[in-house]
Formats: sequence, C-alpha cells, structure tokens
Amino acid sequence: MAEGLVDLRSDTVTRPTPGMRRAMAEAEVGDDVYAEDPTVRALEERTAELFGHEAALFVPSGTMGNQIGMRLVCEPGQEVLCDADAHVVTYEMGAAAAVFGISTRTVVSDRGLLDADQLIAQVRPKGDWHLTSTAAVAVENTHNRGFGRVQPLGELQRLWDWSRGAGVAVHLDGARIWNAHVASGVPLETYGKLADTVSVCFSKGLGTPVGSVLVGSAERIATGRLWRKRLGGGMRQVGVLAAACLYALDHNLARLAEDHEHAQLLAKRLGVDPSSVETNMVVLDGVEAPLVAEAAKAKGVLVSQVSPSRIRLVTHLDVDRAGIDRAADVLAELLDR
Amino acid sequence: MAEGLVDLRSDTVTRPTPGMRRAMAEAEVGDDVYAEDPTVRALEERTAELFGHEAALFVPSGTMGNQIGMRLVCEPGQEVLCDADAHVVTYEMGAAAAVFGISTRTVVSDRGLLDADQLIAQVRPKGDWHLTSTAAVAVENTHNRGFGRVQPLGELQRLWDWSRGAGVAVHLDGARIWNAHVASGVPLETYGKLADTVSVCFSKGLGTPVGSVLVGSAERIATGRLWRKRLGGGMRQVGVLAAACLYALDHNLARLAEDHEHAQLLAKRLGVDPSSVETNMVVLDGVEAPLVAEAAKAKGVLVSQVSPSRIRLVTHLDVDRAGIDRAADVLAELLDR
Amino acid sequence: MAEGLVDLRSDTVTRPTPGMRRAMAEAEVGDDVYAEDPTVRALEERTAELFGHEAALFVPSGTMGNQIGMRLVCEPGQEVLCDADAHVVTYEMGAAAAVFGISTRTVVSDRGLLDADQLIAQVRPKGDWHLTSTAAVAVENTHNRGFGRVQPLGELQRLWDWSRGAGVAVHLDGARIWNAHVASGVPLETYGKLADTVSVCFSKGLGTPVGSVLVGSAERIATGRLWRKRLGGGMRQVGVLAAACLYALDHNLARLAEDHEHAQLLAKRLGVDPSSVETNMVVLDGVEAPLVAEAAKAKGVLVSQVSPSRIRLVTHLDVDRAGIDRAADVLAELLDR
Amino acid sequence: MAEGLVDLRSDTVTRPTPGMRRAMAEAEVGDDVYAEDPTVRALEERTAELFGHEAALFVPSGTMGNQIGMRLVCEPGQEVLCDADAHVVTYEMGAAAAVFGISTRTVVSDRGLLDADQLIAQVRPKGDWHLTSTAAVAVENTHNRGFGRVQPLGELQRLWDWSRGAGVAVHLDGARIWNAHVASGVPLETYGKLADTVSVCFSKGLGTPVGSVLVGSAERIATGRLWRKRLGGGMRQVGVLAAACLYALDHNLARLAEDHEHAQLLAKRLGVDPSSVETNMVVLDGVEAPLVAEAAKAKGVLVSQVSPSRIRLVTHLDVDRAGIDRAADVLAELLDR
Repeated sequence: MAEGLVDLRSDTVTRPTPGMRRAMAEAEVGDDVYAEDPTVRALEERTAELFGHEAALFVPSGTMGNQIGMRLVCEPGQEVLCDADAHVVTYEMGAAAAVFGISTRTVVSDRGLLDADQLIAQVRPKGDWHLTSTAAVAVENTHNRGFGRVQPLGELQRLWDWSRGAGVAVHLDGARIWNAHVASGVPLETYGKLADTVSVCFSKGLGTPVGSVLVGSAERIATGRLWRKRLGGGMRQVGVLAAACLYALDHNLARLAEDHEHAQLLAKRLGVDPSSVETNMVVLDGVEAPLVAEAAKAKGVLVSQVSPSRIRLVTHLDVDRAGIDRAADVLAELLDR
Repeated sequence: MAEGLVDLRSDTVTRPTPGMRRAMAEAEVGDDVYAEDPTVRALEERTAELFGHEAALFVPSGTMGNQIGMRLVCEPGQEVLCDADAHVVTYEMGAAAAVFGISTRTVVSDRGLLDADQLIAQVRPKGDWHLTSTAAVAVENTHNRGFGRVQPLGELQRLWDWSRGAGVAVHLDGARIWNAHVASGVPLETYGKLADTVSVCFSKGLGTPVGSVLVGSAERIATGRLWRKRLGGGMRQVGVLAAACLYALDHNLARLAEDHEHAQLLAKRLGVDPSSVETNMVVLDGVEAPLVAEAAKAKGVLVSQVSPSRIRLVTHLDVDRAGIDRAADVLAELLDR
Repeated sequence: MAEGLVDLRSDTVTRPTPGMRRAMAEAEVGDDVYAEDPTVRALEERTAELFGHEAALFVPSGTMGNQIGMRLVCEPGQEVLCDADAHVVTYEMGAAAAVFGISTRTVVSDRGLLDADQLIAQVRPKGDWHLTSTAAVAVENTHNRGFGRVQPLGELQRLWDWSRGAGVAVHLDGARIWNAHVASGVPLETYGKLADTVSVCFSKGLGTPVGSVLVGSAERIATGRLWRKRLGGGMRQVGVLAAACLYALDHNLARLAEDHEHAQLLAKRLGVDPSSVETNMVVLDGVEAPLVAEAAKAKGVLVSQVSPSRIRLVTHLDVDRAGIDRAADVLAELLDR
Repeated sequence: MAEGLVDLRSDTVTRPTPGMRRAMAEAEVGDDVYAEDPTVRALEERTAELFGHEAALFVPSGTMGNQIGMRLVCEPGQEVLCDADAHVVTYEMGAAAAVFGISTRTVVSDRGLLDADQLIAQVRPKGDWHLTSTAAVAVENTHNRGFGRVQPLGELQRLWDWSRGAGVAVHLDGARIWNAHVASGVPLETYGKLADTVSVCFSKGLGTPVGSVLVGSAERIATGRLWRKRLGGGMRQVGVLAAACLYALDHNLARLAEDHEHAQLLAKRLGVDPSSVETNMVVLDGVEAPLVAEAAKAKGVLVSQVSPSRIRLVTHLDVDRAGIDRAADVLAELLDR
C-alpha cells in the first residue's frame, strides 16, 4: 500500500510482508515443469491434504485454477451451471467458452446464495440431440459478488449428494474458502470433500503476491498439468512463489478473523446491517458511488465502485485497526452516517 | 406425415408437397462451393432483398445460420446477450462456445418477450480487464420457447436505436420470422432493417425439407461463406434444396395465416386463452404431459411434451382443418375440456 | 454442365441425372434430426455395412465427414498426423484447429503415397509435459492432390496393425474410396476394416448433388451425431438427398471404370505416362497453366490450374467419350502434343 | 543445482543467485492486474525499448508469450507457417490449435535454419474458399531444436521485407534471442525491428526463476493483456518476479559469452565440430543416448537425450568452468573420445 493510503478496493492488493519476502528469498527451488521444485511439491501436497483430495497443482492465478478445474469436469460442447454473479462467468473474460469451448449457463440468485434445488432444476441431460448437456455445477465460497457470503453447508451437502447420483460434477471456486472456513468454523477438508475440483487462491486474504492451487483426484490433476502447460502456466523455479503460500498457511490463515472483525467495525460505523457482513466485505448501498469514491480517495481512502450507487470495502492484511478507523472516519463524514 | 397421423409436434416435420418436389426435380444446378449454382444464387439474392440487406448465404440448418450469424458480430472471448429461453442457447448444443469460443449470457424474460431495457442494462463494456465484453445481442422472433410469441416492433426499434450508439450488434434469429410477419403485418424488410445479421429458416412453417439463409452485409456474408466451408456446410449442387425454398416463398408464405387460424381453433376448443396464441403454437398447461402424449399418440395425434405438466401443439402445412378438428376432438376428450 | 462445355475441373461438378432426380422426387422422408427419415437411415445402414462398420451418419459435406471423423478419434490439444498434401489440411479451411482445437502435423510424401513407417516414426507419445500427443493418423484414398493415387493395401495394413498396439487411431478420408475400389479391386469392406472412422463422399465420382457419410462404431457415431448438430449439419427431411446417394450406389459405382478408361485415353492423347494415372485424374506438367486454361476455355473445355505450370483434368459422369475426345483434341492442339 | 551435480540438460534449470534473490526480496510491487506494479511496468518498458517496439507485456512463460504473440497476428481459422522443429509446434502442447483455433503448418529445414524463400513459397492467400489462409510466419532465434543455431540476419531481413508487401505478419520466438545477440553482435533492436511480435524469455540463459515478455505495438499488446487474463496469466504483485528479470538484464546478459565459450570447450573436448556450435548447445551424435545419459548421471553429470542416438548439452549460468571440465572428463571417458 502506498504511503498513507488505506486501500480497501480488494484483498488482492496486499503486498508481501518482510517475513514472507524472506521465506521467498530463501526458498529451495527446482524446475517445476519437470516437477522438480521441492517447495512447489510441498505446497501441492499440503494443499491437497488440507482439502482431503489426492493431488494438487500450482497455477499462476485463480482464473487458471477455476478454468482448468471446470475443464477437468466438463468437455467442450457441454455446459457448467452456476450463479449469474459467479466470478467464473463475470470476471474471467469468457475463458470457459473462449479457451475450452465450454458453455456457461446461469441462475439468478439472492446475492450469490447457493440454492441447490434451483440449480438441480436447471440441469440438462446428456445425449439429447438439441440440448447442451450439463456436465458440472460451479459453486463459489465465499461469494465475491455476493460480498463475502458464506455458502450454507447444508446446501453444499445437498448438492453434492444429488450430484453423485446424477453424474454431474461439482467445481468449487474457493478463492476465498479461507474466509468461509474461518467465519463458519467448517473444516477446509469438509468443504473439499463436497467437490470434485477445488480452486483456492493465496493472493487474496492470505496475502501472497501470486499463487493459486487446483485440487482434485490424481488422474484429473495429471490432466490438469497438461492443460496448465498448454495455457502457458507452466513455470520454472516457481518455488519462490510457492514459499510465500506455505508461509501464508502458517501465518495468515487464522488472522483472517481479524479482517472479519474489521469488516464488522466498518459496518457498525457506517450504518450497514452487521448481519449482512459475513466475512471481509462491506457494501454501502444507495450512495453516489463515483462522488464518494473520488472524495474518499482525496482523503487517502481507496474503495471500489461496484455500481453507480454501490461501494464495496474489503478488509485485509495490509489494513490494520488504525487504517480501519481512519477509513470509517473519512467515509462516515462523507456519507454523513 | 405417416398415414392417418396428425403430427403437431413441430412445424419442422412437414414434408415436401408434390409441387415442391417437382420444383426440386427440375432445379437448374451448379457447384455452389464455386458459387455457380444459379438456383442458390437466386434464393440468396431474393432473401437478401426481402430483408433489405446486401447479401445472403444458403446454409444447411437454422443452427448454422444462427451460429455463423453470431460469429460475424462477435469475436471469440466476447459474449452474446440473449433471452434465457432463446433457441441459440437452448437447442443448439452449446455451439457458440464449442465452435466459436463465444460466451452466451442470458436474462430471464416473460415467455421470451423482448424487454430492450433489460438487455441493455446487462451489456458489459469492451476493453475491461476482467469482464467479458458484450459484442452483440440476439433476439428471436417469433420466439419458439415463448410459444410463437411475436416481438413488439417498438422494443425491436428501441434496441436497434440504442445499439447503434453503443457499438453493440444485433442478431435476429428469424427461424419463424415468416409467422411474425404474417401475424403482425410488419414487412419482412422492416424486421430485417433492425438487425445486423438475420437467420431465416425455410424448413419450418414454409415446409421445405432443408434450408436456411443467413442475411447481412456483403462483407460479413463473404466472411460467413468461409466459416460455412470451415464448418462443413459448403455443399455442391444444392440448388435442388434451394428450389424448394424459392417455391415456398411463392406458395407457402401467405398461407401461414391458415396455421394461425388453426392454432386459434385449437385454443378455443381446448380452453386456452386465445390471446396467448399469437402464431402457430398452442400450449396446454397443467396437464400430465407424458400420460396425455401417450394417450393422444394411441389415437393418432402426436404432440410435444415440453415439461412434465406442459404440452405444445404446433400447426403447420401438413395438418389441414380436418386434422385440426380430429386433434381437438382427441385432446378435448382426453383432457375433459 | 452448361451446353456444349466439357468441364474437367473436378468430379464435384457433376449434376444429377434424370433418373437420380426422379429418385429424389419420390423419396420417402421424415425428420432426420429425430432420426425419423427412412431414406437416410437406409443409406446409413447400407454404407455402414459396405465398409464393415456398425454405424454411419449422413453429413452435408466431405469436410464435415472428415472433421467429425477426426474429432471422434482425437481430443482437443492432441494432434492428427497426415500427409502434407492431404485434403484435410489443405482444402478444409483449418477446421481441425478452428472448430475442434486439434493440431495437424504433416510429413512430406511422394505425391500423397502412404509410407506407413514414415508416419509411425513421427508419432509422439501421450502424457508428455511438452509434446503434443499423436492421437490419430489420417490417410486419404484415393489421394486428391496425389492426382487420384490409390494407396497400397500393404501399407494400409501395416499402418493398421501397428496402430492397434500403439493406441493410435486411423481415420480414412475416403472421399474417392470408390475409385480406389474400382481401380484396385480391393473390396470396400477391406478398406473399411483398416480404419476406425471413414468418411466417404457421394457428390464426387458417384454424381449426387450433395452428401457424405461418416462410418464408425456405434458409440463413436452416436457422439458424431451430437457434433453434427452442434456444427449445424443436422437437417430435416434430408431423405431427398440420401435418395440420390442410394441411387448412386446402384447405378454409378461400377461405371467409375469408364472414368478411369477416359483418364487413360486422355493420358495417351496428351503424352502423359499412363502408369501415373491410377484413377480419374490426369496431370499435365510443364505447361503455362493460365494460358492453356484460358485458351481451352475459349474452346469449351474447362480444366483446373493446380500450379502455374500444372493443369489437372478430372474425368466423371458428366463427360462422355465424345467429350473426352473433344477435350483431347483441344488440348493436344494447344499443347502441340 | 543439487550439490555436486553438473546439470547440462537445459538452461531452464538455473536457479536464482543470492544477488537476484535479494533483488526479488526488495522489489517494489503493486497489483499488476490493475497495471499498478511499478517493477513490472519498468521491465515492460525496458524490454519494449530494447527491441524497438511500443509496448510489452509480462507473461508467466515463454509458451504464453509465443502463443499470445501468434494470436495477435493470426485469427482463428488462419494458419501460422513455421519450421517443423519450431518450439511453438513441438513443445507447446498444441496450444495454437487447442486454445486459439489457429492452424500451424510447417516446412522441413536444415536444423532449424531459416530459408525465407522456402517459407514464402508455402504461403497461402486470404479469402480462398478452400485453403487455410496464412496470416503469419514464426521464426525461432536461436533455434532450440536446431541446437542453438543463430538465424542469418540476411534471411530475417529478406523475410521481413517480403512480409510487408504480402500482408503476412512475422512472430519472433526469441526465447534465446539473448544468445543470438551475444553470439552475432546484432543489436537486440535490429532483431526486434524485423518482427511484429517478439516473445523473449528470462528464465533460460538469463537465469531468472520465471518470466517472459511479449513485445509489440501498443494496440496489439493491449489486446494481448486481455488474452493474458483470459488464459489465467494475470498475476498480482508479480514485481517479485520482474525484479529478477531486471536484475538479469543488468548482470547476466553479457556473460552469455562465457556460456558460449564453455560450449566450444565441450565441443573440442568431445570431438564435435566447433563450427556447428553457435551458442550454448552442443550435440553428441551417434551415441547410445540412454546408456550414456545413465552412466553420466551416475557420475554426477546430467544431459538430455534428444533421440536414441543423440545427446544434448546446454551450458548456462549454473555451470562454471570447473563444472564444464568435469562434464567433459566424464563424457570423454564414457564416449572414449
């Protein structure tokens, strides 16, 4: 964060701490295209285990993790069903279609909240001579455009149970599964066991500069490794990045609770219903977003405009309690709340 | 239609009449891959003119017409916005993504009815670093899954006017534009002028065995010709099929009014609100669809089950007034209406 | 053929004879998208049986037959290996890559002649982290750009035997397999049994206006049917075209011997080594192609320029003995041979 | 390099030196998806300038650089022409076809040596109704499978001059352009000016753990940025990697001369014609590759088997003079040279 700025635009803006940088500088590395980087392998093994799967693959971004994850459970010409506000259909540049020939079809939800029955009702059969067949559903937890919403475990379980009989796979976009885990207390492994493929990201709340990991069966991940190379995601001595991820698992996971508290603080100070804030995102509705964003910036507070009347604040590692207070002061004054 | 059967499943089931067969048998032909088939060229020129565009291209199916049409106004990685029940996203096997790398995104409508403002509100800008940019919107007229609904001219006009300033193209899936034209009295050219690309089909209400035509600017159609070849839609002495289409324009267009009357008759006899029947499709709601379809079939009447509680009847060239009466009798008795 | 012209550009230019047109006009038809067209089914069954395979699929063009055929034995990201002059890589607009994400890689051959060992030496293994894996090889028989060359049965057999152990599939582009069969006496079934998928074409020497058939296992053809729809190749009452193909099998297959004799006649008259003419194509080398083509055209004889110094003549159903003599006279005079 | 091992398999195996690690640990970073990472921007600007182009884009791998580079000069359905042994068609997993729908077509060369006339003769025109049109040619310098061969400036110039009139673009796979520059003395900018897009790699001879840069016009690079995101190559605080690349430009470029000397030494010691060794690769022909590789490994020297009778040695930053001598001793003894 630039000197003096409180940057609440996203938790992607965090920068590596001195400790993390040290871990990176000291990382043992090898050529990961030959699967010879010991730090990457350690990260892959640890992440697979955390989520109760056989194997894992380091990828340069959450987008690559999600897209390869969906490709591993869906063939070209088939479709993935998901929420209309899902990251995979909103912020990933149409990759599913463009790169993999996969259709995406969506249902409209209440701020991203998974309704298993609603998804199930939309599933289309295989082998029909007109319809695009539904190979998989994708679930996002926590839900970014649902402002950090945590998916109910019961719905995840119901979807999973149904999917086994239906021959439909489940992909979990777990970019912020860490926040869901810390907020709900549900073990990562429990979440992991309710999906065929899971993409998790270390460069959001966990604070690493770069890095996502895709988790799944050994067979799927072996295929995923080929696709990663084909997409240009095969890197060499990338243990320098994986070391940051391992460091983050040790030091930055439990502390997400602090980000969640900060979000509650902001909510209270700014008149937002605290029950609507489930993790590290706060939404200000009914504001003149461009005006407020501009004015806040002038006072050193950066926020996101997600619509002309809506502003989003995201708490993270790089904003401490003092920053939160300062942001609250600036915004409360601007909004007269 | 097999002896004695009244087939109301779809207007795609029509078979060529003796007159049409004669026209086909006598067609002058050439090698259309070299653009040397005079009958195909005549059909292409006539169709282009009917819709007020520069050029046209004969294609083997409505699906190819729609998909190439969308490709001509949308690049891989971009998206086409349309209704959630549109034929292009429902019955075309995910072709946009699979073949062209084009994303489709949808809005939920009232039985397919175009709401220009609703579509416009969903359009995403070009050049953003996260969002899939919206290159085009697709409109279906009449709307198949909207049960033959005719799109309001005012909404088409509003969408078109907006699109010019927005740099967004409009594709018209006009598979049944003939029915819209006959029902509304709006000239084909008027409809044509409100779209950049138009796909029309001759093997539905117009009764030819095979044949669709894609309409657009000369430049776009030249590119479309390359894509047609690439997709395997380039055929040789295909004037035998085009002759049927020319015959249909002469003999089967005005008579669609009769199909619409037949649909009204069915509606009245079966207790369906006649105002909900705009062209040649009638929907029976709240029925036990599998049971009714089976029982009707046993009595020589074929219908479509479009959901477990919904049956669709489509009137067309191969079902005359006597067939309609017979179908009405059979279904009225089965439904006790 | 236009009045008085002798068109030797290609055997694709043939037009349906009165008998064939009659068969088309009288064809029994149904909706082939629902697999209800009896004439199409009869053609599919007959063709499958001819080539000793379980199932077959009618497609609008040889390009679609080849491309879907290759897709059925090759996944996106893998490659098909073939001759550098193969139709599938030369005249099909890059469809393998553009539509299916399949790479093509080629070996340079002696005028299209299959050299099994040469292909085998180029095959790349599956699962490598850098190399594109070779899923299939494609063979063309007769070879178009090899000027009607017939592939040696021994090489086909050697390739096939090797392929079984190697897990590599074989696709046969049999657009002109009819000519190979008539010229070599090898049964169609023998050729068919040496490939996993076979695409054959009825609109070349067999003289139908439109129509190709893809042959393979029941499972592959079921998948092929989905791809045909996705590519826009699903047509409705297409029995009108299939009837011509059935007619051609009855009337136009054995007579290809006549075309081959005509080609020999042309070769002799024009000083071409007759042993280089294996079926229905004759090549004139070392000529000023544009000049000769223009001058011949002025005298009513159409030929193809395949390079600045090379002209190709193709004999077919629409050029009888008198036409051949006339073409020979015209060309002999022009070439002073 | 693991303790005591001399790893000559590839120059991709180099590991960051303490100085480079320090540069990485101290890198100033920002969110590069928002183009806010100052170190990445510095690297992009510096690289663009080095090659005389307007703009540049940091990408995670040479494969992504090459593939996006080719996409920027070639549309789906078109083809890129290159050498049969080019990295882009050999080691990039069929990405051009699989990801972008681009066909690749190849010519057979003498160990990768560019022959401009040979490529030019293969170019196919745009707009043809059968042929795949040639949008671009790709040249590799130095040529990996040509064992480090430097492309002659005259041929590059001749290709470029021709390309301007022909409307065909030139992509340079410059993964090892640094070696070409150091070996030939030709300025990087001279090479850059003879291509529309250039991909260069920092994780080979320059010794960084990860990082490639794609260079081109401002407009193309802006489009490339969208494709990078779509492929999952958009990373966040990736200045930690870019810092290594900047460090490498300062410290590791000129020293490639040392690698070239080492290669000459190896050649002399092992009886290889020194004139066949142009940069940092030495090939041992006519050896029992698996046997030699195994035996050398047992003595602490790692080499690549590029065919059953061919071994490749690559010199780089992590092998000093002592390592070279040791490798030479081990191999000379094994080969009895």
